[in-house]
Amino acid sequence: MRQPSTIKSIGDDAAVLQPTPNKLQVITTDMLVEGIHFDLMYTPLKHLGYKAVVVNLSDVYAMNALPTQITVSLALSSRFTVEALDQIYAGIYAACELYGVDLVGGDTSSSKKGLIISVTALGEVDKDKVVYRNTAKVGDLICVSGDLGGAYLGLQLLEREKAVFLSHPDVQPELEKYAYPVERQLKPEARKDILDILATYDIVPSSMIDISDGLSSDLLHICTQSDVGCQIFEENIPVHTKTFSLSQLFKMSPITCALNGGEDYELLFTVHPKHLSTLSDIYGLSVIGRIVPAEQGRKLFTTDKKGHDLIAQGWKHI
Amino acid sequence: MRQPSTIKSIGDDAAVLQPTPNKLQVITTDMLVEGIHFDLMYTPLKHLGYKAVVVNLSDVYAMNALPTQITVSLALSSRFTVEALDQIYAGIYAACELYGVDLVGGDTSSSKKGLIISVTALGEVDKDKVVYRNTAKVGDLICVSGDLGGAYLGLQLLEREKAVFLSHPDVQPELEKYAYPVERQLKPEARKDILDILATYDIVPSSMIDISDGLSSDLLHICTQSDVGCQIFEENIPVHTKTFSLSQLFKMSPITCALNGGEDYELLFTVHPKHLSTLSDIYGLSVIGRIVPAEQGRKLFTTDKKGHDLIAQGWKHI
Repeated sequence: MRQPSTIKSIGDDAAVLQPTPNKLQVITTDMLVEGIHFDLMYTPLKHLGYKAVVVNLSDVYAMNALPTQITVSLALSSRFTVEALDQIYAGIYAACELYGVDLVGGDTSSSKKGLIISVTALGEVDKDKVVYRNTAKVGDLICVSGDLGGAYLGLQLLEREKAVFLSHPDVQPELEKYAYPVERQLKPEARKDILDILATYDIVPSSMIDISDGLSSDLLHICTQSDVGCQIFEENIPVHTKTFSLSQLFKMSPITCALNGGEDYELLFTVHPKHLSTLSDIYGLSVIGRIVPAEQGRKLFTTDKKGHDLIAQGWKHI
Repeated sequence: MRQPSTIKSIGDDAAVLQPTPNKLQVITTDMLVEGIHFDLMYTPLKHLGYKAVVVNLSDVYAMNALPTQITVSLALSSRFTVEALDQIYAGIYAACELYGVDLVGGDTSSSKKGLIISVTALGEVDKDKVVYRNTAKVGDLICVSGDLGGAYLGLQLLEREKAVFLSHPDVQPELEKYAYPVERQLKPEARKDILDILATYDIVPSSMIDISDGLSSDLLHICTQSDVGCQIFEENIPVHTKTFSLSQLFKMSPITCALNGGEDYELLFTVHPKHLSTLSDIYGLSVIGRIVPAEQGRKLFTTDKKGHDLIAQGWKHI
């Protein structure tokens, strides 16, 4: 066991844990369903097991907490072999090892059709360090880790190659050129490193969320729950060069993909403006805007200096 | 919120909990899959939501712990209406209320086909009171709560009435006479009351498990993990009169149903023999045998005084 808080793992009616004294605990759950969240035509089973864990750990990090244990429930139909199940678990174990969490509970059952993975993750955080969505303050900087839109465009490419393959089974898929966005879709990572960096600089965000639905939708969650407005600037929104060129291939606006795409599993957070110079020095963090009073609305300023209302599906042309 | 340890429930990336100091925590997870664990032709959705919670709480009680929080993940296809979802949640909330637990996390998504409910339950227990499966001692009494075989026979009746209905849709099902075993199948309860009673008498079981797979299989789990043998006696195995008469209708041995049936969610535990007279006085508890050295095997003694080897599928005629 990697975590000292794990007393007894799989093998009894329940696992037994010894929560760390004086820490708060967080718990989150997420389910991945075949045909809805993934397509096994282009999703390796090991990646799937890995991703099912990572999307939950991302929620734990978004509370500024460190994950400690997970439980996994799997249902799969008889078309899956024992080797397939082993592949899924290999991915689950790989994620557990990389992120230092213990798998303490499992339940594998049959399904009539398809594959379902449900993961629950626990984590812990110092009492004065837990970060919610509803505590952004006017004047705070809005920051995002990594880059956005890649997972969405990677999915578009996988879907296109699948369609090509189905109509012309002899044509091999061309994915190498866009390995980056494809990997963002198939094997996302959770941003433990960002928590470490912020802790190093003694920065506690004033609010935080992970970007699973898209920057626009998730920033609106922070604004609504904190009762504030926001201004973000198109030129500051981070898009990877490979993501950008893939957006050109699909004749899509890269900014639209970044705002709406979802599944990037980056961290979106707000911090007190006194940290601006520190944040600007941190590689892999972008300051994309600021929190303003609620009555100023929630706006995206495009490169032409025009303001547009942010909506859950991205942004509205006026 | 019913539990003081629930700091922040649904509404953020994760729920935030404050585990009770000096207590151990337990965590367990179980998934119910349509067509595998339940049939919606005879399972009311509210009962289904209730049962999905109860089967998890039963695992918490089997650690001698009290449940505190649950998370629920649901996937359902477009054939389910919003009202159907409300019914499932009505059952989930009813179980939360009766057992005093908080629903702190939820994830509802689509499925291509069918309904899947995955529940994870947390509980807590004093450090010196947690009860495992692997700690039964030679000489201990073997006890079981309630009565057995009902859930299995209730299921047989529901399956028969379904077959009748499918071939003769004008025939109304006859379930009233056997309401008890049918309810055992559709709306089981977890035995919180047994923990309360044992605590009142200051009895801590030496080992415990909940009966989800059947008395035989679950008793073998205790024996194998504790490296001991057992002797149980047919005449002591509790079977409800309504369960007995239903077994006669199906021309099945009631003892076979009790041993193999499963889904009774009763508690099976071992206790030091000094508690014999106390246990005998407790209504709804049966002392069904004793723990013996491993080399004496795991045996069922039938009413004709003959010993039979217990196997996971019940017992073996010699």
